[in-house]
Amino acid sequence: MSTFVNAYGVPAAGEPLVPTTVERRDLGPHDVRIDIMYCGICHSDIHFARGDFGPLPVSPLVPGHEIVGIIVETGAEVTRHQIGDRVGIGCMVNSCRECANCLDGEEQYCLNGHTLVFGGADRDGSITQGGFSEAIVANEDFVVHVPETLDPASAAPLLCAGITVYSPLAHWKVGPGSKVAIVGLGGLGHLGVKIAKAMGAEVTVLSQSLRKKEDGLRLGADHYYATGDPETFSGLANRFDLILNTVSASVDVDAYLSLVARDGVLINAGVPVEPQSVNVFSLLTNRRSYAGTQFGSIRETQEMLDFCAEHGVTADSELINASQINEAFDRVLASDVRYRFVIDASTFSTPAA
Amino acid sequence: MSTFVNAYGVPAAGEPLVPTTVERRDLGPHDVRIDIMYCGICHSDIHFARGDFGPLPVSPLVPGHEIVGIIVETGAEVTRHQIGDRVGIGCMVNSCRECANCLDGEEQYCLNGHTLVFGGADRDGSITQGGFSEAIVANEDFVVHVPETLDPASAAPLLCAGITVYSPLAHWKVGPGSKVAIVGLGGLGHLGVKIAKAMGAEVTVLSQSLRKKEDGLRLGADHYYATGDPETFSGLANRFDLILNTVSASVDVDAYLSLVARDGVLINAGVPVEPQSVNVFSLLTNRRSYAGTQFGSIRETQEMLDFCAEHGVTADSELINASQINEAFDRVLASDVRYRFVIDASTFSTPAA
Repeated sequence: MSTFVNAYGVPAAGEPLVPTTVERRDLGPHDVRIDIMYCGICHSDIHFARGDFGPLPVSPLVPGHEIVGIIVETGAEVTRHQIGDRVGIGCMVNSCRECANCLDGEEQYCLNGHTLVFGGADRDGSITQGGFSEAIVANEDFVVHVPETLDPASAAPLLCAGITVYSPLAHWKVGPGSKVAIVGLGGLGHLGVKIAKAMGAEVTVLSQSLRKKEDGLRLGADHYYATGDPETFSGLANRFDLILNTVSASVDVDAYLSLVARDGVLINAGVPVEPQSVNVFSLLTNRRSYAGTQFGSIRETQEMLDFCAEHGVTADSELINASQINEAFDRVLASDVRYRFVIDASTFSTPAA
Repeated sequence: MSTFVNAYGVPAAGEPLVPTTVERRDLGPHDVRIDIMYCGICHSDIHFARGDFGPLPVSPLVPGHEIVGIIVETGAEVTRHQIGDRVGIGCMVNSCRECANCLDGEEQYCLNGHTLVFGGADRDGSITQGGFSEAIVANEDFVVHVPETLDPASAAPLLCAGITVYSPLAHWKVGPGSKVAIVGLGGLGHLGVKIAKAMGAEVTVLSQSLRKKEDGLRLGADHYYATGDPETFSGLANRFDLILNTVSASVDVDAYLSLVARDGVLINAGVPVEPQSVNVFSLLTNRRSYAGTQFGSIRETQEMLDFCAEHGVTADSELINASQINEAFDRVLASDVRYRFVIDASTFSTPAA
């Protein structure tokens, strides 16, 4: 017998979110039921809700993919988690488990398509509904442990923003001696600064203006430059081993590549809608690479949470009630948040004003 | 006292090459004088000669950067070579020796600009003149040993075409189990097939048509596909660990990226004039990279020659006389050569017909 839980959803693309209920399936043998404590708000929740990624696959659609909660029930064959465990769910809740990438433990690159935590078609054909809700049921393999030393509210954004920046930094082996630049100081970028710094790198923020410079240095950046100033690009030529671009808008790729040292890489964590223009000469010089990255695997997400616990890294966040989600969406679009909204999930049961 | 030697040069951009003489400097303490035996013809000789890379820096300009010869004289402090050694010179004859890349032994990426073997400004300000000549004087550090087991004529193209494909294959660690695709079966591509195969990779040629298929398989390719056939791209999705694009013209980068497996790379060895269009989603999927490469270091060029000697790899070449250079240029542009013209340098002293 399935259960209906309180949630906030989008009735139609671009409309405000409204209180609703969402059905959670009965537990299969490998499922766990999680009472959600907190859920972060990510820019891609807003993109989905506004139809930027296509028509809504279900109405209402319940976004939310930075989930922290407590396990309250376990399926008969669950071995990875116990009732009472504090756990997290991020961008995906399933994958094919058969393709080369899944077998390598890199299921975020599942060749048959991983299942997104909301708006995705699960293996049984049902459409998933996300973390803007009181509770969720998920397969144990896609649930990670959230260390007790992390504040659960400000740990929630680690499940998407955190892993999205941790994964490329770890994959490209950032460590002591690495010169890393983070482009954009938003939800992803501010965690990029903290994590790269915790890895031992020399960290530079490249932001449009110097408006957030004080903040960037407080977060751990060693240097802070305005990309609006052309001298930034001439002065930093060939400087960085890794540039992580967290901005989804189009950028001058050649200009950023010119800052990359030999055998270094410019990595896009965001996806601009328009194709980017790349002069091959920018790649040839210094044997540079231009690469992309997509959140992280479950194994790596656990590794990231353990790393963040060890180094005391969480998001700078602003806690809100469910009734403030629409206002928060507007503020995210206006870059008016430092640096992540997190919803107190206990407020989903409160009728909206 | 400098010496004048017979050569073939371009009086002005786009004009046919004519017999000329070129001045070779007296030996400095670290210089060697080389009697040239053979010099290959590379597409970029033609680009330079036709002014595609800008106005000629000197008139006449003597191209040629795939040089094999014998050392006939050594400067007082030369330690790396002896009179009688069979040696080679490739794309560069000097670099700053001070920048981070030079100090790392990657002087092809010299941050102050390496000195090209012809048309480059050497450290003393003189303009270098290339291998379409009887003899050359060069600093010993930019001269490599050509193993005696290699046929000297068909080894000449290894000095540019060979190292340009060997370097990325070695740098990105191609070996047994690697799935490699070579785009374009020309001077570079045919050596790419031979070298990747000798490294133990499974090699696929991606060529516009199946016209050279038999040749490709003879050279060692395991598979051969026509890129003119759209089914090639759907059938080979996510297949390759490394795609080496030897074609200088613009290509559909997203289509080639779609063939790259997780953590794989599409590498441009050629430089299209136009900026390329890249959809970031193509990079995000499978965490792909798009990279560039530029011939190779002196250390790596020696490693490549030793590797080719060990595996019996040389270019398929057609030997010509100096008087046939202009005709050969036209045939290269018409892709009418399998796969490299090599000039017999003894014919530079013969007056043209």
